[in-house]
Amino acid sequence: MNTEEEALNFVKYGHKQYLPHVAIDCVIFGYYDQQLKILLLRVKGHNSWALPGGFIQRREPLTQAAYRILQERTNLKDLFLQQFHTFGDSPFRVKETSAKEFADKFGLEVEENSWLLERTLSIGYFALVDYSKVTVTTDFFTDAYQWCDVSELPDLLFEHNDVVEKALLTLRLQIYHQPIGYNLLPEKFTLPEIHVLYETILGKELDRRNFPKKLLALGLIKKLNEQRPIGAHRSPFLYQFDKENYDKALQEGIVHAY
Amino acid sequence: MNTEEEALNFVKYGHKQYLPHVAIDCVIFGYYDQQLKILLLRVKGHNSWALPGGFIQRREPLTQAAYRILQERTNLKDLFLQQFHTFGDSPFRVKETSAKEFADKFGLEVEENSWLLERTLSIGYFALVDYSKVTVTTDFFTDAYQWCDVSELPDLLFEHNDVVEKALLTLRLQIYHQPIGYNLLPEKFTLPEIHVLYETILGKELDRRNFPKKLLALGLIKKLNEQRPIGAHRSPFLYQFDKENYDKALQEGIVHAY
Repeated sequence: MNTEEEALNFVKYGHKQYLPHVAIDCVIFGYYDQQLKILLLRVKGHNSWALPGGFIQRREPLTQAAYRILQERTNLKDLFLQQFHTFGDSPFRVKETSAKEFADKFGLEVEENSWLLERTLSIGYFALVDYSKVTVTTDFFTDAYQWCDVSELPDLLFEHNDVVEKALLTLRLQIYHQPIGYNLLPEKFTLPEIHVLYETILGKELDRRNFPKKLLALGLIKKLNEQRPIGAHRSPFLYQFDKENYDKALQEGIVHAY
Repeated sequence: MNTEEEALNFVKYGHKQYLPHVAIDCVIFGYYDQQLKILLLRVKGHNSWALPGGFIQRREPLTQAAYRILQERTNLKDLFLQQFHTFGDSPFRVKETSAKEFADKFGLEVEENSWLLERTLSIGYFALVDYSKVTVTTDFFTDAYQWCDVSELPDLLFEHNDVVEKALLTLRLQIYHQPIGYNLLPEKFTLPEIHVLYETILGKELDRRNFPKKLLALGLIKKLNEQRPIGAHRSPFLYQFDKENYDKALQEGIVHAY
């Protein structure tokens, strides 16, 4: 949706193309240089920030809709989206919106019986990407974007702050039973590099001795016979993911303890 | 919904009371005596089994709807429902149903423009209960129920077999980072009892020495100065959950490894 005509058509006739009552929101975590950020879009003609989101076409599979919406809003593709929760409890998600509320929020006039005013649940998806490698382009409804530090989010539209929090919680629990990092680190990395990646995502310190031991014991990474010279007396060994074990763990989960 | 009049009203005017396009399905895992089962309902006048499910009222919070539906269909209350996935990809969930298909499936005549024929996504919830302690009562649309072994499910309605599989996968991953068992074991239990509970849910053998060590190391269970005499020379020590640590782990997740 890039032209004004398309946007007006969407407001007026969107219910013929899209399912009412259900939308999709995407939490795109970006990691780079020891920082964890989230992709936000600014709603056009308005000073509020929100997650990229949109509606499902009437006969479009749900997963496909999530990828399409992300691509249309941000031009991001080839990333792995994971569904994590459907939101339908917050005050905003339990009733219809009035045309006045809608106009106040989006600066957009719609008729009282517009499909956009109906109660809408939201299905949340998240992804984790190296944000230095992605180029974001916005569409007609959004006029700016930013990668915002997770600890410094502004007040977002709707209950999007809660949506981000739930996504972060899911990611942090998941890190204990699924490997991450394959597309977030260089092909060959040092132990401190993967250590910092996990610490940044978990938002807390990890034991400097046990953490790499565990990754090695699980067979997720392997030590290379290769060092990176970074100073006069510092040339740490390089490591690599063991892609076979990594993919197996993605499928089956990591069995840590029992 | 218990009378025929209520049921007919639901078919004809349900869209005034309920949101179209979104439904809820519940996977109720029952554990007892070393067996893991799932609660199935039989659709009335039909020989097919399905998960308990239903629709969300127009202004009802999503979570509240899940509990109400479960209670109406099965009379189960006071159990913890957890949302795990929203389904919208299978052939059945990407398009409308014809009145003929609907009649074939449910033995129920509806008009071609009925709201029940519209494309419907399904939000899945699961719970884990001691099935020896619950009494199930069915409603107008269902005429029988059974607790069916997870490894012996019949062909269920819609894609409900996939829904069960996804719920089981979620439960099995979750067991690694959240404690379970508090309401599934007697207040004081032996190590073999909790061992078998975990093995049954995970569907595989766990190391007989390491497993209880880990639970003790995590502080989730504590040894009592009390034994259960079960034979001439057998009186195993009894254990109890440490409720404070257990609740903390439920909130924060278990940090196994890093």
